[in-house]
Amino acid sequence: MTLEWEQTVVDAGDPGALGRWWAQALGWVVVDEEITAEESVIEIRREPDVLPGLLFVSVPDERLGKNRLHLDFRPDDQQVEVARLLALGARRVDIGQGDATWVVMADPEGNEFCVLSSRASADG
Amino acid sequence: MTLEWEQTVVDAGDPGALGRWWAQALGWVVVDEEITAEESVIEIRREPDVLPGLLFVSVPDERLGKNRLHLDFRPDDQQVEVARLLALGARRVDIGQGDATWVVMADPEGNEFCVLSSRASADG
Repeated sequence: MTLEWEQTVVDAGDPGALGRWWAQALGWVVVDEEITAEESVIEIRREPDVLPGLLFVSVPDERLGKNRLHLDFRPDDQQVEVARLLALGARRVDIGQGDATWVVMADPEGNEFCVLSSRASADG
Repeated sequence: MTLEWEQTVVDAGDPGALGRWWAQALGWVVVDEEITAEESVIEIRREPDVLPGLLFVSVPDERLGKNRLHLDFRPDDQQVEVARLLALGARRVDIGQGDATWVVMADPEGNEFCVLSSRASADG
């Protein structure tokens, strides 16, 4: 029994732009990019051989409400990273998280993600 | 700049059942589980200290069509893994993938995921 988690796939309106945005946000590298009129795909990884990566693919569908899956990231310093992501074009979103230890943000296409409490802190 | 990908979070109707299903499907371990009447959370990882993991959380929302994010897995043997997952209760789904090299399946709550071509094969 062997199933290796290769990637989380993100449907996108503009995969090239969204994938490069995430590569910059995370400091990751683009390992594959195919942009055609018919279909576009871009894959980013922390390092070229480190799995899982993130794969952005073009779809015609609109987003329908909050995503059922989302990504969580652990920062060294939550405040610093949230400020940096806001400067890159992310925004804060309210999905009813209340007074949580994590910060809920959305990428340029509206996909929710969380910046967890700083690594030094106690919980998530 | 340090953001570590801690987990992909999956909204679930029954996180405990869905998380244990995925732990069995992947051969992963449960590293955290909190089941209360108010909110349930279960986290699974390939190994206790290996990130990212998968975190299943309870939400009241229904799924709205195909998920915007999904997981891709690379098998040693695609046919063997697809048969094993079907026996566990996954099902094949048609999202218009046509004659692709990967097999699109859905977990017990309907979340789409892909079993890619076998590791020995050429492409994804």
